[in-house]
Amino acid sequence: MPLEHQGPLARLRRGHEELILRLLRTHGPLSRADLGKLSGLSRTTLYDIVGALVDGGAVVAAVPEATERRRGRPVERLSLHPDAGQAIGIDFARRAVHVAAVNVAHEVIGSAGEAHDADLPWPRRIKLAERLVGGLAGGTLRLGALSGVGVGVVGPVDAPRSDAEGPKSGAVDPDLPVLLRKRFGVPVLVDNNTRLAALAEATWGAATGVQDVVYLRLSHGVGGGLVVGGALHRGSHGLSGEFGHITAEPDGRRCSCGKDGCLETVASIGAVLRAHGGAKDLAGFLAALPHDPAAARVLDEVGTRVGTVLAAVCNALGPEVTVLGGELTAAGPALFDAVERALFAHLMPISRSRAELRPATLGEAAGALGGIALVLHESPLLARYPEPTSLEHT
Amino acid sequence: MPLEHQGPLARLRRGHEELILRLLRTHGPLSRADLGKLSGLSRTTLYDIVGALVDGGAVVAAVPEATERRRGRPVERLSLHPDAGQAIGIDFARRAVHVAAVNVAHEVIGSAGEAHDADLPWPRRIKLAERLVGGLAGGTLRLGALSGVGVGVVGPVDAPRSDAEGPKSGAVDPDLPVLLRKRFGVPVLVDNNTRLAALAEATWGAATGVQDVVYLRLSHGVGGGLVVGGALHRGSHGLSGEFGHITAEPDGRRCSCGKDGCLETVASIGAVLRAHGGAKDLAGFLAALPHDPAAARVLDEVGTRVGTVLAAVCNALGPEVTVLGGELTAAGPALFDAVERALFAHLMPISRSRAELRPATLGEAAGALGGIALVLHESPLLARYPEPTSLEHT
Repeated sequence: MPLEHQGPLARLRRGHEELILRLLRTHGPLSRADLGKLSGLSRTTLYDIVGALVDGGAVVAAVPEATERRRGRPVERLSLHPDAGQAIGIDFARRAVHVAAVNVAHEVIGSAGEAHDADLPWPRRIKLAERLVGGLAGGTLRLGALSGVGVGVVGPVDAPRSDAEGPKSGAVDPDLPVLLRKRFGVPVLVDNNTRLAALAEATWGAATGVQDVVYLRLSHGVGGGLVVGGALHRGSHGLSGEFGHITAEPDGRRCSCGKDGCLETVASIGAVLRAHGGAKDLAGFLAALPHDPAAARVLDEVGTRVGTVLAAVCNALGPEVTVLGGELTAAGPALFDAVERALFAHLMPISRSRAELRPATLGEAAGALGGIALVLHESPLLARYPEPTSLEHT
Repeated sequence: MPLEHQGPLARLRRGHEELILRLLRTHGPLSRADLGKLSGLSRTTLYDIVGALVDGGAVVAAVPEATERRRGRPVERLSLHPDAGQAIGIDFARRAVHVAAVNVAHEVIGSAGEAHDADLPWPRRIKLAERLVGGLAGGTLRLGALSGVGVGVVGPVDAPRSDAEGPKSGAVDPDLPVLLRKRFGVPVLVDNNTRLAALAEATWGAATGVQDVVYLRLSHGVGGGLVVGGALHRGSHGLSGEFGHITAEPDGRRCSCGKDGCLETVASIGAVLRAHGGAKDLAGFLAALPHDPAAARVLDEVGTRVGTVLAAVCNALGPEVTVLGGELTAAGPALFDAVERALFAHLMPISRSRAELRPATLGEAAGALGGIALVLHESPLLARYPEPTSLEHT
């Protein structure tokens, strides 16, 4: 696969491959002559590119029955391999593994998940992922036809594993991509699983097709992700989307990150339970909510903090849609309404009619689906052809 | 020029044009045969694209003297037109017009500016811009060879001019692009001038070559811009970079935007003068600063607010460099140190060693230079060939 190629020549070649695949996706089966006309590529280049795509299994060449055979040599027609471009997403969350797969038409053909102890060693997590993947699509998934595996993990991905700040708890095994690649035999792309959830919501979920999306997840931790111009924004050293560590309460509690008053110290599930002081877990809290004014007050306060932080982010970024996800959102309007109120109060007035807050729709599968979206975005096999930036032309 | 073309075919064609221009830029003069080999394009496509580029004046065809003529037909060599791709930037600020121009090598060949009354009508501002442009490069600038004009204006650009929120004061004349295009005969790209200053700082200024940049300008207003993945981020409806309207003081003053406690109500030049209460303009304030502890205290307080807001933005976006510009930064370390202290205090600890605050370096010309950068980014004539997104490949 050309995913690892670098340099201008490889880029040029990758561009040509993308062009051919896009034409076959758009027009259906085509002869080499048709492809030459449509692509503008020379015969030499075209045969070279097509040959590589056929060798790689992405494209199949077949001679149709009858008609075209009558005169001269039979004309081969090229088409996308029906199984090509299947992609798998795996989300290694703190206490669960989730997997999902899509076919060449970008349709989700299956997803699955299983909880495990937080201290389950990596080799056993990978075995669990393998087993879940093996069961997808009724066990018919052809791993050989996979174009890539997108993997979500906890914590920043681009940053060194161990440095002055110390390793993040739950940090990913540095050998994970190698192990996975060995197992699946295809390129493996790794990213933070909350960022992947953001990409998934912008691809198949609450903000499908929206170019600029802010995604915030309220769970045991508080984090998020940004989709900018239709693509995942990683930031320098993979440190974007850290909404949970924006200061929400200047003289607030010490956060696990080391600074004080982070949004996470106020809006995580643990923080909500602590502020409430009654329920011993989220399920208990949610069960009490309908008839417990104290629980509602806690959510109102939390929602106000969340909305205020989101407004700062939205004034900076100007997203079209802000998506709120994570287990805490099961609290429904008691939380959501407060977030929305504070968000719109602190949004620049001119932006208010152009912004929208939506609940996430993909639930626990979001990270795994985001892994797939990552593969679809990055692999030439299923890449969306780059759209030009919108411009104020005259 | 192909700037206005839309649709997949136009995109394909534009991609081919970019390829040819890039090869000529990289390799110098080439024959059509060489170009064919290097580009992989068919003869038909190549001749078509090259013909259009020659007709448009971007490429010149010439037969070199001697040698290659000896046998058979003379071999024409194609090269970039030496004057092609000059671009002009114009910044229509509230009370001044600034212009700048670059040659095909992306070198700034001249810049100029002139102050005017805030209520100068648009036709006279445009005349002023024309005069300033006419004087650039010692009057030798060949307007016919321009590939485009990038124009900075005050206020959000993408948003409708007049709507429920009312027009922004100083909003741009909706006919401005048409007027400019008529005058210069080339495509005109318009964007917010503070956003353009951000792009300029990331192209020629304090953050040259940095992919992810947050830029904040402290002036009569407070605004900013984002460079994400090396490109200007506009946001939905052009409403990104509104750092001045992030809430900095929850129960603060009413802002001109209609909400309370915006950063602009604390950190604009007017807000600083009001908080100080002595100096009647910025020059007076800056003159007093070295021997006026009250002035230093005001800047310390303002810098703390600014740094806190910037930290929220940086935790969300993970930029590599944050650039601080605008007239107020003439105060130097008295302001800058306070901003830096608060920024790093509120930045997630893991990000601290990876973030940097720098003073802007382009001064008043930044908006005009950003207009040029916009043209260079968007025009096929000088476009940087798209770089693939960096990825955690394995």
